[in-house]
Amino acid sequence: IDATADLVCAYKPQFAHYAAYRAEDQLERTIEYIHKTHPGVPVILDAKRGDVGNTAERYAVEAFERYGADAVTVNPYLGSDSLEPFLKYADRGVVILCRTSNPGARDLQDRLIGSRKLYQVVAELAAQRWNSRGNCLLVVGATYPADLAEVRALVGDMPLLVPGVGAQRGDVAHVVRNGQTARGTGLIISSSRAILYASSGEDFASAARAATQQLRGEINSSRTRPA
Amino acid sequence: IDATADLVCAYKPQFAHYAAYRAEDQLERTIEYIHKTHPGVPVILDAKRGDVGNTAERYAVEAFERYGADAVTVNPYLGSDSLEPFLKYADRGVVILCRTSNPGARDLQDRLIGSRKLYQVVAELAAQRWNSRGNCLLVVGATYPADLAEVRALVGDMPLLVPGVGAQRGDVAHVVRNGQTARGTGLIISSSRAILYASSGEDFASAARAATQQLRGEINSSRTRPA
Repeated sequence: IDATADLVCAYKPQFAHYAAYRAEDQLERTIEYIHKTHPGVPVILDAKRGDVGNTAERYAVEAFERYGADAVTVNPYLGSDSLEPFLKYADRGVVILCRTSNPGARDLQDRLIGSRKLYQVVAELAAQRWNSRGNCLLVVGATYPADLAEVRALVGDMPLLVPGVGAQRGDVAHVVRNGQTARGTGLIISSSRAILYASSGEDFASAARAATQQLRGEINSSRTRPA
Repeated sequence: IDATADLVCAYKPQFAHYAAYRAEDQLERTIEYIHKTHPGVPVILDAKRGDVGNTAERYAVEAFERYGADAVTVNPYLGSDSLEPFLKYADRGVVILCRTSNPGARDLQDRLIGSRKLYQVVAELAAQRWNSRGNCLLVVGATYPADLAEVRALVGDMPLLVPGVGAQRGDVAHVVRNGQTARGTGLIISSSRAILYASSGEDFASAARAATQQLRGEINSSRTRPA
């Protein structure tokens, strides 16, 4: 964290990789550490929650109060009332899965509903209904850059969280070109394994920093800057 | 638990209601207690997981190895490769969200894809592709009994987990009539609040038992028994 905090726009710890090892306390302490030492860098808890009303409320408490996350990823399959308990935390971000970066994303997300694919319906619902407090973001994988352009066209300047560069081999320049807003902003491009495992030696921190600098350079050199 | 173990076919602890209170250890110990004292009663961990491949593997480890659950609920939005890490535990159940019991279920699950609704596409994928090891179940809410009949027609004898009776006011007789297999089986009808909160007094255990007996009676009196 200390090796990269001046280079990144956010951290996105992945819940499963703590939960499988009974390491919830380490997740709590990691987020607390980021907030304390790098208060300008928000933390997105990647937990992909999705449940009915009273249970979704408990998940919102878990993410925002217990872990103190600034944002959390959620799954839209259960619809509006499963998202509202998160959305009502108006000062926190709710990052809704839209078009994910994995091969199986096709199974449901690409199904045609009239003239729209399911992920486009999710993008429209986010833009038109779920974003009344201005705290929605969407997940759109880097591995499908054409879909990123489709989503950008539907959601205005809504920020997009883009996993799938690095280990999943999405193309950064293509992602930026298709996903950025008119002002060259609006993207949170996430890289996990390519940075975390940049080196397994004692130079892991400097190797992680170098990998982060490289990705940051690639992102920024592809951005359209307003004149 | 001890007041109801001779009456039920499964327990379904809800992850969020532990996680919001930093009570993962109590969830572990509760499941361990059920296995030790009532080894014939399986535990379904209701955690609604859904993530990409390598992360889904960690969630499967969490559910099946850390918590020792016999089955876990999962969300199908990310498609086949998000389910496979769970499905490959061939001796465990994978309970896939299909038609949930909440009002917002309509937002995506009822969308028409050709002549099928999205939840019917999920049911077909479960029956035709995801159930190759015979360890799939589907969640279909009691609040939409007509949809339960549609799903039953698509999935043969696959077991269905049915939440939404009790506090959510689904009709038990209607659920059983529409959801049972030809042999009068194939349903796990879940009631949480109506049993857990049957009484807040010292008689909570006997009140929970009475509520369980009543629901069990309603279920069994509606079943078609083979001659």
